[in-house]
Amino acid sequence: MNNWDTVAIVGVGLIGGSIGLDVRAKKLAKRVIGVGRRASSLKAAKAAGCVTETTLKLEQAAAAADLIIVCTPVGRIVEDVRTAAAAARPGTLITDAGSTKGSIVRALDGTLPDGVVFVGSHPIAGSEKSGPTAAVRDLYRDRVVVVTPTETTPAAATRTIERFWKLLGARTVRMSPEAHDAALAATSHVPHLIASALAAATPADVLNLAAGGWHDTTRIAASDGALWSQILCDNRECVLEGLTEVEESLEMFRRAIENRDLAGLERLWQVGKERRETAKKKKSNATSASRRR
Amino acid sequence: MNNWDTVAIVGVGLIGGSIGLDVRAKKLAKRVIGVGRRASSLKAAKAAGCVTETTLKLEQAAAAADLIIVCTPVGRIVEDVRTAAAAARPGTLITDAGSTKGSIVRALDGTLPDGVVFVGSHPIAGSEKSGPTAAVRDLYRDRVVVVTPTETTPAAATRTIERFWKLLGARTVRMSPEAHDAALAATSHVPHLIASALAAATPADVLNLAAGGWHDTTRIAASDGALWSQILCDNRECVLEGLTEVEESLEMFRRAIENRDLAGLERLWQVGKERRETAKKKKSNATSASRRR
Repeated sequence: MNNWDTVAIVGVGLIGGSIGLDVRAKKLAKRVIGVGRRASSLKAAKAAGCVTETTLKLEQAAAAADLIIVCTPVGRIVEDVRTAAAAARPGTLITDAGSTKGSIVRALDGTLPDGVVFVGSHPIAGSEKSGPTAAVRDLYRDRVVVVTPTETTPAAATRTIERFWKLLGARTVRMSPEAHDAALAATSHVPHLIASALAAATPADVLNLAAGGWHDTTRIAASDGALWSQILCDNRECVLEGLTEVEESLEMFRRAIENRDLAGLERLWQVGKERRETAKKKKSNATSASRRR
Repeated sequence: MNNWDTVAIVGVGLIGGSIGLDVRAKKLAKRVIGVGRRASSLKAAKAAGCVTETTLKLEQAAAAADLIIVCTPVGRIVEDVRTAAAAARPGTLITDAGSTKGSIVRALDGTLPDGVVFVGSHPIAGSEKSGPTAAVRDLYRDRVVVVTPTETTPAAATRTIERFWKLLGARTVRMSPEAHDAALAATSHVPHLIASALAAATPADVLNLAAGGWHDTTRIAASDGALWSQILCDNRECVLEGLTEVEESLEMFRRAIENRDLAGLERLWQVGKERRETAKKKKSNATSASRRR
């Protein structure tokens, strides 16, 4: 038995394409319609098995769907949700996969046609790769998806969206859009900015000496620049605050190095090391809890 | 036929232990003496097969060796080389594996007993792990080892040290100690500092939302703090210059985000992305050249 008759995925890149692969493999819907703006991407998504059919017309897919997942870049999500909602039948649920939530959720809150509900989501998964050919099965397995209902979101809609992500193997965490944006600035948006700035600051002529450390620290600098520019601007205040935190941390390192203060440097180093250990513990606890489920 | 009769490895952690494993597996020496300051580490190194015998007495090992590789932390290398050189027979070659070269090589230059030669080395390999139990075979395979002779280093000694690293599968690059330190500040020392500062600046209570990006960007923050404090202080001027470069890059990002300058942000992002692509190309060219050898 399918959980949904028709799921529409708007934007069939790495994120949307991977959702499609799982929805199909787990038989969560009879039809999976891929919506895009370029015929070539849609063709690639269908060839990769991400969707059962494709269309360039968002309205057409929205009118046929019970569940619509908008996986377009952050700067397009509000517009795509509005277009989809205007064409959707009453009872249709819409969610997204955007890396920021505050501006998107607040812009849509209370503005959609009666009977069409939007619940914001952010699946914390991905890679520096992009496009439907980068889509993989189980991208969301054991990953966290933050779901961000507001005061006006019907509780049943939130639960359905949470169930959807859990069916893909994810754990869901409920947060306000604002709390999400503050947290993700620290764990994702600022690290992307730092990785990019570090890569850019490394002179090209010494890169033959770059080893694993440089490659890992700058891996996410290879992410899509257009996508990330939108995320950084959209979550502007939180990103700038997080950047200030890092710069203050760098200033402490600078002073300790200037003073050849080995003991002070070791203490600073220890703080970062403890954060890594905390993160590792939280990750393994979460994974074993989710395996027990 | 062995290339050396007796190799002494001073400091049998990840770096020294891995050298020992290769020297033994490739039968480059009859005896491989592990030297350390704690009996427990030496026992672990012998149990892991890194060395054929062990001693707490550096002088004793140095007197028996044809080739001595000093793999102690940067802050101890000069002293250990001096102690080894004073006990060594004429004709003995000494090298090291320190991550900085300027202060070490210049402190030793022209100060060793006649007939004992030191040539600085830096194998650009490692991991955030440490200790003899972290030692692995082929750690140096396809890796770059920078060898830093000075104006007074006998050419034959430099060639022998280069041959040693090549026998472990590495490629060697010859540089001045000063050029090495400037390059490695950019490709390794500053990235370690940035990773550590970023990890420290991430609030502990949001780490449950940290995903692959955060974990990769901060991986090397888990490295040994005592070791890295010494490296950062030893290569002080170059590290502070490199840090300034990154801070300037971060300032440009900050201004673009403040001004919601999407096009400017994309241009900044592109610079880092190109550096990643350059590094990737240099890596794969080097690997295929070394496979052809």
